[in-house]
Amino acid sequence: MNRAECLAADRADPLRRWRDEFILPRGRIYLDGNSLGPLSRTGRARLKAVIEREWARDLIQSWTKNGWVDGSTRIGAKIAPLIGAKPAEVIVADSTSVNLFKALAGALALRPERRVIVSERGNFPTDIYMAEGLAKLLGQGHELRLVDGDVTAALGPDVAAVMVTEIDYRTGARHDMAAVTRAAHEAGALTIWDLSHSVGAMPIALNRAAADFAVGCGYKYLNGGPGGPAFLFVAARHQDGFVQPLSGWLGHADPFEFASAYRPARGILRAICGTPPVLSMAALEAGVDLMRKIDMKTLRAKSLALTDLFIARVEERCAGHGLVLATPREHARRGSQVSFRHKDGYAIVQALIARDVVGDFREPDFMRFGFAAPYLRFVDVFDAAEHLRAVLESGEWKRAAFRKKRKVT
Amino acid sequence: MNRAECLAADRADPLRRWRDEFILPRGRIYLDGNSLGPLSRTGRARLKAVIEREWARDLIQSWTKNGWVDGSTRIGAKIAPLIGAKPAEVIVADSTSVNLFKALAGALALRPERRVIVSERGNFPTDIYMAEGLAKLLGQGHELRLVDGDVTAALGPDVAAVMVTEIDYRTGARHDMAAVTRAAHEAGALTIWDLSHSVGAMPIALNRAAADFAVGCGYKYLNGGPGGPAFLFVAARHQDGFVQPLSGWLGHADPFEFASAYRPARGILRAICGTPPVLSMAALEAGVDLMRKIDMKTLRAKSLALTDLFIARVEERCAGHGLVLATPREHARRGSQVSFRHKDGYAIVQALIARDVVGDFREPDFMRFGFAAPYLRFVDVFDAAEHLRAVLESGEWKRAAFRKKRKVT
Repeated sequence: MNRAECLAADRADPLRRWRDEFILPRGRIYLDGNSLGPLSRTGRARLKAVIEREWARDLIQSWTKNGWVDGSTRIGAKIAPLIGAKPAEVIVADSTSVNLFKALAGALALRPERRVIVSERGNFPTDIYMAEGLAKLLGQGHELRLVDGDVTAALGPDVAAVMVTEIDYRTGARHDMAAVTRAAHEAGALTIWDLSHSVGAMPIALNRAAADFAVGCGYKYLNGGPGGPAFLFVAARHQDGFVQPLSGWLGHADPFEFASAYRPARGILRAICGTPPVLSMAALEAGVDLMRKIDMKTLRAKSLALTDLFIARVEERCAGHGLVLATPREHARRGSQVSFRHKDGYAIVQALIARDVVGDFREPDFMRFGFAAPYLRFVDVFDAAEHLRAVLESGEWKRAAFRKKRKVT
Repeated sequence: MNRAECLAADRADPLRRWRDEFILPRGRIYLDGNSLGPLSRTGRARLKAVIEREWARDLIQSWTKNGWVDGSTRIGAKIAPLIGAKPAEVIVADSTSVNLFKALAGALALRPERRVIVSERGNFPTDIYMAEGLAKLLGQGHELRLVDGDVTAALGPDVAAVMVTEIDYRTGARHDMAAVTRAAHEAGALTIWDLSHSVGAMPIALNRAAADFAVGCGYKYLNGGPGGPAFLFVAARHQDGFVQPLSGWLGHADPFEFASAYRPARGILRAICGTPPVLSMAALEAGVDLMRKIDMKTLRAKSLALTDLFIARVEERCAGHGLVLATPREHARRGSQVSFRHKDGYAIVQALIARDVVGDFREPDFMRFGFAAPYLRFVDVFDAAEHLRAVLESGEWKRAAFRKKRKVT
């Protein structure tokens, strides 16, 4: 596609109207919605209402009057259709890390004779670290077994759970949820899916895959605001036997009884721990409300078209500069991001940011570009590839200022 | 004091100017700042900036550009002087419940030969439930031992930690932090203090008492916004040996290395788990910034005067209606709330709320009234007692609408 064809594609885009729902800095090509989604107009209005009307005016009465008390289950139920779950299988609470701990402990409790958790060495660090923390705490032969390559090859009679991130945070490669879950179940193990880089970016079918547990991030493709709360899915069939150690007061069968012994609430409610951060919950709810209105099949089709276009344009326009595509070309095997490897990737990304083309970098050499279909245009993709070419051709990335690493998330 | 004397006391109040910093609904007497503190003008402005400038405009770059990445330690260091701690001993993260889990696990790891946690049966439920959850998860003879009355009577060679809430959430009674800590240490145990009902309400001296761990709530007297993040204190002397199982990526020595094995960060940093909820963090920081400007000794003097006045007025004006004071009269033995017991306490509180005098109720029969000295006036206390008298004299609390229980926090 040339630029005129991109503009034509944007005019014909069935998701076109959604871009106006987001507040995007003028002139910026934002390819980092896989790290932090933008604010929406409804999110801004919702936050204003929560701050000025609910907190400032209604104060403590907002817990019932404005539905704060039911936020975890209400927003969870809204996320459910985005991940192929039933409403009563999902809650919003805490961070992805903390929810992983609940899922991991819950899975181990359901497989008491097995003490091994299997995951990929390249999984997102917090997934690995939380499993490490739990295994070390339990310390009765519990072990996190990290594998390079196919996790199902590490299955065995000692494996309680397989923990996989559906879309790899660096390469954007996608795991086959149904196949991995089937193999795990055949070996007697449970699955824990991290959906952080898939939720809101493509259709997800947890129940069709017979997944056992899942967690996911609220602030990436769900546009739920910086550091916003995460979600936890527990398959209905496991809920009666689900035991999780972060048994805070809001997971009690009757929190307002203020009883001196814990009695878990029914179902997914027992996965709630402490009082949720209401302001951050409100931002997430607005993000979820918006994403629920968008047809996920249409979104996925556009996401694949955008990523196809970026791969094609970069390979054509930036040939000879040493970029290596890290993302699978096959549609079924990738998410909504494109990653290229380059030994000077960090500096190249900084040079792009200086041109207002915002991607990010992940060690050791991954340049990541996220393509959120609700607000990105084909012309943005075209222009981003041209900027990348310009950065490489000009060598402007070689400036010292672009090489100095800073911490970013 | 009569009403004119209350008005005079308000004119002479050295904290008088702080009331204007808060956004308080006109005509409401808000005696529930011990459950949810009000929004401040600076908090509103800060939230607007974070939403419209930092999130909407700077997007992902805010992590470094706007200091999001250091929020946990920066706000923790700001809370430190309010609790008698050093800046490097405090972080803000997660909920009080989750931080209790970290402190409890950390304490048990420091006393590996001991497996008992001691607490009061009347402690706030989440404290009890989190300890129960941890003891059950570990399951190697670990036990939560709940006592009625003096926790130090339960000390023994098997006790690893004593977990006490400094100010009782129902009665407002205060524990002697120095004495309990001394007794615990003499018995070889560590202490975990829950400061939820004391932080921002009175001076606290963790290090003078040689306390080991502490947690506390951000949304009560710190006015940090609904469900806002909590804090965790780990005494400097324990930090090198501090091991906590919620080892998320932001507690790693170098989170942006994305290493495949956990290596704890130095000091209190290792207590951080996942990405913090930035919007809720911002509200808390504004609340803390405000409270830090108020002299805690002056605040405590006013708090005691307000609570003395409320006790005196209620006992004089509501005599014969069966109210029983649950809060200790002795200054050193109480916090900043006054609780009266009454078998119809729930309905009485609802009738007061209908008169725009907002307190709350706790099972089985506690009417709670919190007195936040930065924004409450002596005349509010006077008027609240008159409303209570009117509710009792008129019997208006007997209406069916006031007797129907609803869930509130």
